[in-house]
Amino acid sequence: MTPLSLAKRFLLGAPLASERLEHEKLDKKTALAVLSSDAISSVAYATDQTLFVLGAVFGMGALAYVVPTSAIIVGLLVIVGISYEQTLQAYPGGGGSYTVARENLGKGPGLVAAAALLTDYILTVAVSVSGGVAAITSAYPSLVPHAVAIGIAAVALLTVVNLRGVRESGAAFSVPTYAFIVMMVALIGIGLWKVAHGAVPLSTTANLNVDAALAKAPRPPGGLTGFALAFLLMRGFAEGCSAMTGTEAISNGVQAFKAPAQRNAAITLAWMVAILGTFFLGTSWLALHFGAMPTVNETVLSRLGHAIFGSGLAYYALQYATFAILVLAANTAFADFPRLAGILARDKYLPSQLAARGDRLAFSNGIIALALVASLLIWLFKSDTTALVPLYAVGVFVCFTLSQAGMVVHWLETREPGWRWRAALNGLGAVATGIVSVIQVVTKFTEGGWIVALLIPALIVLLKSINTHYRRFAIDVAFRGRSPIMPHAHTVVVAMASVNKAAASALMYATSFERDIHPVHVEVDPENTDRLLAEWDRWDIGYELEILPSPYRSIVRPLVDYVSKLQAETPGLLVTVVTPEVVPRHWWEHLLHNKTALFIRSAFLFKPNVVVVTVPYLVGHGYHAARHGPRWAADASLFTGEIATSGPAARN
Amino acid sequence: MTPLSLAKRFLLGAPLASERLEHEKLDKKTALAVLSSDAISSVAYATDQTLFVLGAVFGMGALAYVVPTSAIIVGLLVIVGISYEQTLQAYPGGGGSYTVARENLGKGPGLVAAAALLTDYILTVAVSVSGGVAAITSAYPSLVPHAVAIGIAAVALLTVVNLRGVRESGAAFSVPTYAFIVMMVALIGIGLWKVAHGAVPLSTTANLNVDAALAKAPRPPGGLTGFALAFLLMRGFAEGCSAMTGTEAISNGVQAFKAPAQRNAAITLAWMVAILGTFFLGTSWLALHFGAMPTVNETVLSRLGHAIFGSGLAYYALQYATFAILVLAANTAFADFPRLAGILARDKYLPSQLAARGDRLAFSNGIIALALVASLLIWLFKSDTTALVPLYAVGVFVCFTLSQAGMVVHWLETREPGWRWRAALNGLGAVATGIVSVIQVVTKFTEGGWIVALLIPALIVLLKSINTHYRRFAIDVAFRGRSPIMPHAHTVVVAMASVNKAAASALMYATSFERDIHPVHVEVDPENTDRLLAEWDRWDIGYELEILPSPYRSIVRPLVDYVSKLQAETPGLLVTVVTPEVVPRHWWEHLLHNKTALFIRSAFLFKPNVVVVTVPYLVGHGYHAARHGPRWAADASLFTGEIATSGPAARN
Repeated sequence: MTPLSLAKRFLLGAPLASERLEHEKLDKKTALAVLSSDAISSVAYATDQTLFVLGAVFGMGALAYVVPTSAIIVGLLVIVGISYEQTLQAYPGGGGSYTVARENLGKGPGLVAAAALLTDYILTVAVSVSGGVAAITSAYPSLVPHAVAIGIAAVALLTVVNLRGVRESGAAFSVPTYAFIVMMVALIGIGLWKVAHGAVPLSTTANLNVDAALAKAPRPPGGLTGFALAFLLMRGFAEGCSAMTGTEAISNGVQAFKAPAQRNAAITLAWMVAILGTFFLGTSWLALHFGAMPTVNETVLSRLGHAIFGSGLAYYALQYATFAILVLAANTAFADFPRLAGILARDKYLPSQLAARGDRLAFSNGIIALALVASLLIWLFKSDTTALVPLYAVGVFVCFTLSQAGMVVHWLETREPGWRWRAALNGLGAVATGIVSVIQVVTKFTEGGWIVALLIPALIVLLKSINTHYRRFAIDVAFRGRSPIMPHAHTVVVAMASVNKAAASALMYATSFERDIHPVHVEVDPENTDRLLAEWDRWDIGYELEILPSPYRSIVRPLVDYVSKLQAETPGLLVTVVTPEVVPRHWWEHLLHNKTALFIRSAFLFKPNVVVVTVPYLVGHGYHAARHGPRWAADASLFTGEIATSGPAARN
Repeated sequence: MTPLSLAKRFLLGAPLASERLEHEKLDKKTALAVLSSDAISSVAYATDQTLFVLGAVFGMGALAYVVPTSAIIVGLLVIVGISYEQTLQAYPGGGGSYTVARENLGKGPGLVAAAALLTDYILTVAVSVSGGVAAITSAYPSLVPHAVAIGIAAVALLTVVNLRGVRESGAAFSVPTYAFIVMMVALIGIGLWKVAHGAVPLSTTANLNVDAALAKAPRPPGGLTGFALAFLLMRGFAEGCSAMTGTEAISNGVQAFKAPAQRNAAITLAWMVAILGTFFLGTSWLALHFGAMPTVNETVLSRLGHAIFGSGLAYYALQYATFAILVLAANTAFADFPRLAGILARDKYLPSQLAARGDRLAFSNGIIALALVASLLIWLFKSDTTALVPLYAVGVFVCFTLSQAGMVVHWLETREPGWRWRAALNGLGAVATGIVSVIQVVTKFTEGGWIVALLIPALIVLLKSINTHYRRFAIDVAFRGRSPIMPHAHTVVVAMASVNKAAASALMYATSFERDIHPVHVEVDPENTDRLLAEWDRWDIGYELEILPSPYRSIVRPLVDYVSKLQAETPGLLVTVVTPEVVPRHWWEHLLHNKTALFIRSAFLFKPNVVVVTVPYLVGHGYHAARHGPRWAADASLFTGEIATSGPAARN
């Protein structure tokens, strides 16, 4: 094994056979950790986003709006959750919004959904990792200059873990997700108990007394007209909707579940919606009652942690769990992006390499592609979460809308039992998320929403042109076999620079299958020609060596002309050009040999009915093997030497 | 023609035939411009370097030392010049110090000279271009932040002009060299006239009155002991010796002269020594008499220009000519480095690519290599001349010494007429330049001389290991032909992914020269196998398609195992693996096709007695050609289509 393959084996583990595919699937508990970390971790920033937007105008008074806003979002979440429950029953093959939109609404809407989903997965990685890094750099300010490097290292870590395969990545990621769930349950439980027993915020810090008082008395929206107020509230709502990103992950990933996949996925999705809804509403409600406004330096969750846990071990446990789930939320995208890319590749909308499972049965190329693009984004946006977040939720609501609109069509066509109320439910969801989509684009357009509004159409164009290429290619190579094959005239040209073992091996290879052989020498340096011809005559193998003059010192052009001449003389002639290729042992030795074989291959690449055969001649590969004979002669016992010395003369 | 070759033709001109080599040679006037710009342009900075070193201790008093120092250097220059006159008569083949040292002193000293010369040529480009850029940026301070970019652009310009070929680069560079010569003759002539007629410096500016007065009264070397004083004077001398860099260029480049090459080179060398010596001594003498101390912002030549020409047109003409010759001095290296590299390549000390003449008969690869390394230096040293200059003259004096020591040995061995005084003259030169070499290294060591002291041995090691590789390779491939060649058992394995035109073309190519064919399919996705076998049976071409299972989804491994099995069954069997290779029309389409052919080729590269043949299948190349049939079908009439439709069935 080479050092490279050893390193690969160490990082990724031994290859897994295809038949083990079924065993790599996820049980419900692991699936919840793998596929829900994105959605659940939103709790760490969604409430903050709403409060930042409203706080800029209302100050502490913003808290008065956070519970109603969150309640609306949770209502929307339940509608979307129920919609996806219906989707994963109807579409067990995965693909989520893309599959549903494509089958029911047509290719166009399918592509829109696909582009929106791909964008959203990439942004999930960039936003979550940047958020996690921000948590570290807040704790250790000396690391601030290294934020981008840490972010890219985190992406690399996620890449390696995911390349090891589905099950192991699930195991690796269960711990932080469940740690976060435990800490959130504790936070909300103790918080409710404290509120119920009146031991409320006021007691925590002097500052919060004022905050809480202010929170109960919203400021008049001084000077805000009705429209501007509505726009502001809608932007706060749109930012809070980032809580819903990741909801579609389970429905898209049904294939990753253990059998019975649909039942297990449905149960997991219900759990995820319940957990996320409870946490989000709980956080917002506690924020109001504890007067926990976020600041630039402290999140809502951190303020609540201080208010409820104090500043001891429990507070730090919450912070570490938050950090861990934020970085690892990116794993949802690492689990689902490659799978969606695989489906798109199978449908010929993405390069076919993305459809191939790697050594460990993961879609390796999709994982690596995601890692590269997300790293690029982290680098471009300098790991700045606030710059990335506005891009974030736009795409996902487009998907929600298309998916549910598709389901309405699905029920209208299948007319399964209960199709009327199912269609009504999905229709309600489609209308609601459609309105939110418009709100997302309109309210966030100037904040970076325009980037997504450009990116999604650009992606659609890319997907379409890839598809066009594959369709044309399929038509191009389509072939109905005809028997029998008629033999073709065939001749072999052997290009030799000098009489040495490498050239001899090429010539001997040619003689092994063809009688009609033309050894030629392109004369770049006329001073060598006489010596070469003398050596050739001494060899005396029964072929004439033709000298091709080269007034412009090109090796390739006289050869091309010579082959063209042969083909002009015999129409339909197949020509094989055989030339030796020196294969040195060390990479740097390549710099010391003219890459003539490569140039010859390139020159004939587009010429019809010509095939270039390079016969490798291995140099120095025998140094380390225990072989007979002197050190240098030993090399000759590899490929060419073996042929060169097997003639009758050599046997005597 | 492709856009790339069109651009190449535009930049470099049409290819020149080898027989025109003689016509590309230089006459004396052009040779003086091409090969002397480095040496002559030293006048623009050599006096300054001495004055900077001595001025730091003596102030204006330094001027008292500049004429004696310059006189010693000019004496040394004459000795070295005479020595090279003798060298170019004895060694008309060029190579200068390298050739002389190698033939007379042995391979070791030859390599030292070669390494020192290569280093010096590279530094010539970096220093001269940086100096020229500094002249521009002094004139236009807003360009200072772009100094590196301007420097690299200047190198690129020099590269293009030199790639066009020797004669044209001579014509392009004659103008600035002769402009500089004219301006210097005017400067020195008018300056002498002014001194003779007493209309001296004092009248130019008030400041120079004081300067001149001080110049006549050297300060006592306060506190300097005898040793420290000697060291300081030696450093001033060593810096002034940068005037002598480039002296060897004509002797190294005898081959570039028109016949009679030696006579023409000898005359040109004499002219160069005369011009350089006159200019250098004249500049120093005028500096003393006009009290022209250099400052950080103004050179000696610029101060003299103001004093002698005033501030009108003539002054600016001098400055522009200085700038032009400084940038173009780099051309000496562009003319000579590739030629030396070519000689070293012929002697197997550098990659053989450096010995090949390009389309325009210049040593293209050497020109490009020089440009790359010099650009790297300009970038690393931020185009800072003062940082590069100390590295500069060290190597050249090592060459002078070795060259003249070699000539002493030469005369002792040949005993030609006058060998005694010739040997004595060269011996004097060798001792003198040997002493200067030691002074160079010792006095400049801490200023950057250590870099050269490390670089030259490192280069020697590189040259030696390249030579070792080539010697081993020559032994390795050495071959005494034996006739006749015994036919070998040969079998062909055709690897097919599916039944399409690309695979058919590979199969038909194989049948054109071999009966023993094994079509195989590596089964990565078992779902496809049945459909593939059905298509194969329908084709009915008389061969069985073998299915190779691939439990780990690798295409390459089962194929390697299959070939190994065949070779184990028939010892000595030659196996050709034929596989189609899709060649798309656009580069980006390559991303959409698995590079399976490439992986197969790599996998067998080191396997003895196996040759991989990829049969190119051109996709979409027919789009633009006017062909029969529908748009997509038209492509089939290229390589494979032509074969695929030529069977009897197709004719019916």
